[in-house]
Amino acid sequence: MHTISDYQGYFLEYLSKQTATKEPKNLYEPISYILSLGGKRLRPTLVLMAAEIFGGSYKEALDAALAIEVFHNFSLIHDDIMDDAPLRRGKETVHEKWDINTGILSGDAMLINAYQLFENYEGNTFKELAKLFTKTAIEVCEGQQYDIDFETRDDVTIPEYIKMIEYKTAVLVGAAMKMGAIVADASEQSKSSIYDFGRLLGLAFQLQDDYLDAFGDPQTFGKQIGGDIIENKKTFLYLKALEYASKDEQKQLRGLFSLNPEDPTEKISTVKHLFETTGAKERTRVEIEQYTQKAFSALDDMSISEEKKDLLKLFGSKLMNRSV
Amino acid sequence: MHTISDYQGYFLEYLSKQTATKEPKNLYEPISYILSLGGKRLRPTLVLMAAEIFGGSYKEALDAALAIEVFHNFSLIHDDIMDDAPLRRGKETVHEKWDINTGILSGDAMLINAYQLFENYEGNTFKELAKLFTKTAIEVCEGQQYDIDFETRDDVTIPEYIKMIEYKTAVLVGAAMKMGAIVADASEQSKSSIYDFGRLLGLAFQLQDDYLDAFGDPQTFGKQIGGDIIENKKTFLYLKALEYASKDEQKQLRGLFSLNPEDPTEKISTVKHLFETTGAKERTRVEIEQYTQKAFSALDDMSISEEKKDLLKLFGSKLMNRSV
Repeated sequence: MHTISDYQGYFLEYLSKQTATKEPKNLYEPISYILSLGGKRLRPTLVLMAAEIFGGSYKEALDAALAIEVFHNFSLIHDDIMDDAPLRRGKETVHEKWDINTGILSGDAMLINAYQLFENYEGNTFKELAKLFTKTAIEVCEGQQYDIDFETRDDVTIPEYIKMIEYKTAVLVGAAMKMGAIVADASEQSKSSIYDFGRLLGLAFQLQDDYLDAFGDPQTFGKQIGGDIIENKKTFLYLKALEYASKDEQKQLRGLFSLNPEDPTEKISTVKHLFETTGAKERTRVEIEQYTQKAFSALDDMSISEEKKDLLKLFGSKLMNRSV
Repeated sequence: MHTISDYQGYFLEYLSKQTATKEPKNLYEPISYILSLGGKRLRPTLVLMAAEIFGGSYKEALDAALAIEVFHNFSLIHDDIMDDAPLRRGKETVHEKWDINTGILSGDAMLINAYQLFENYEGNTFKELAKLFTKTAIEVCEGQQYDIDFETRDDVTIPEYIKMIEYKTAVLVGAAMKMGAIVADASEQSKSSIYDFGRLLGLAFQLQDDYLDAFGDPQTFGKQIGGDIIENKKTFLYLKALEYASKDEQKQLRGLFSLNPEDPTEKISTVKHLFETTGAKERTRVEIEQYTQKAFSALDDMSISEEKKDLLKLFGSKLMNRSV
């Protein structure tokens, strides 16, 4: 078996070979640009790792891995337009560097290109990969729409929120791992289990993202602490706090989440205090732990060696410790 | 054999059954909206007709036909955003009725949904349809990018222009007919010939569109006569006029195409006069006729009955007479 950083290296090497400059330049340069911005390449790494876990070679899985990474970056370009975001990984977003029209069209071409990358697989594998990809891509769009809808709703339930983050981010993690399993021709049981492992771990990771936004270490989290609070984002912490809060606390929290003060310091500390006193902070920790354990339990049914299960668990632990 | 309007009817009936209201509504309502705006449904009709020409049943081709129509409407939503167009088929465009973000995301979901519609075909047919679709969709994106690029270039050549309209509009006509042939399991020769028939007819149609914009009958053309001239669009007529013009006429034409007069009447009549005196008008008529004849010649190699070839030619003639 290779290590996680081996797989990252193999993927980066493969990605670097893709940069043929194609015409028309204004369509393809933004694609090369976004793909070169970096990131941890977690999703494609998972495709390669899963392929070898199930007895395949990572080499056969490179195109599926690239498809997942191209799709992920397509969604970043279009989401950044929708969010009017100026920066992505510290660099200008595509629609800032070029314009919105370029972002739309280059994104479209990437979505199509993702399907194209499956063409190197034979008929039935191609269909299985494309079907999974389609199901996942539709869910990602639905998740993004729910996320937009939730901004203007004040009656979002916890199950609705979980479904939103599941669709918007977790299913792609599950799909990445299942694609590796498909390429390696794993059993139906294994494909289903590894999908659940990825999906549940993706959920745990996203809930942890909500948690760390408020309670993370500014040195290691990478994003501004309290960013979600500043933006009045209805995260798991917020929804759970509302659920646990007294009538007065609910009023206070809703009030705080209708404000956009120039200096948010006091707002952030009051909200964080409410997250703690209502018990939402502790409850969120428990949920993260439960989803992580559920992810690990999904491995139990799989007929692979303990060594391989340990590799997956090691990856899961590293991911949750943000050290991948 | 059925008639063209039979196929239109079958398709419309199938389309009307698709309108299940799905969640999230803000993602799916714009999709139902754009698909209900009408139009001649030429592309899906061609898929059904081609399937029966090659001995299949139109019924097997309905999902491929719907995929083509869904893709076409995806491209309309995204193009209308890029062109900042307020109206589509006399109704509000999606980004006007909702907003740009809704247009981007609903369009994305339609592009994915088009692939999904191929899933009802078995492994190898699925792959053949999806591959053709991917190739075509990428070309449509490239054609759109060339069209955008040409707006700010003053050295566009005729071959570049032909490639642009081929990619932006003609290949989808060819792909529609080839999909019908794929579903009917036609020979490689037949698939290739029907693709060329559609592609060449699409080119003839698009060149005729350029021609009619200047010289069409206002009663029957449907669009404002001179619209391309008002917008300074570098159509085939314009590029050919520049090629044939004397130095002085070139200067005059380029000058006119840098103006945006409030009352464009005189500009239109002067430009049309130049299109005539340079010989561009006549040359464009000849090109349209040549592409139409090339399309018909593509039918010669096909081993189908004369009756079927006549049906395709009848369709071609009707299309070019704008009476489909």
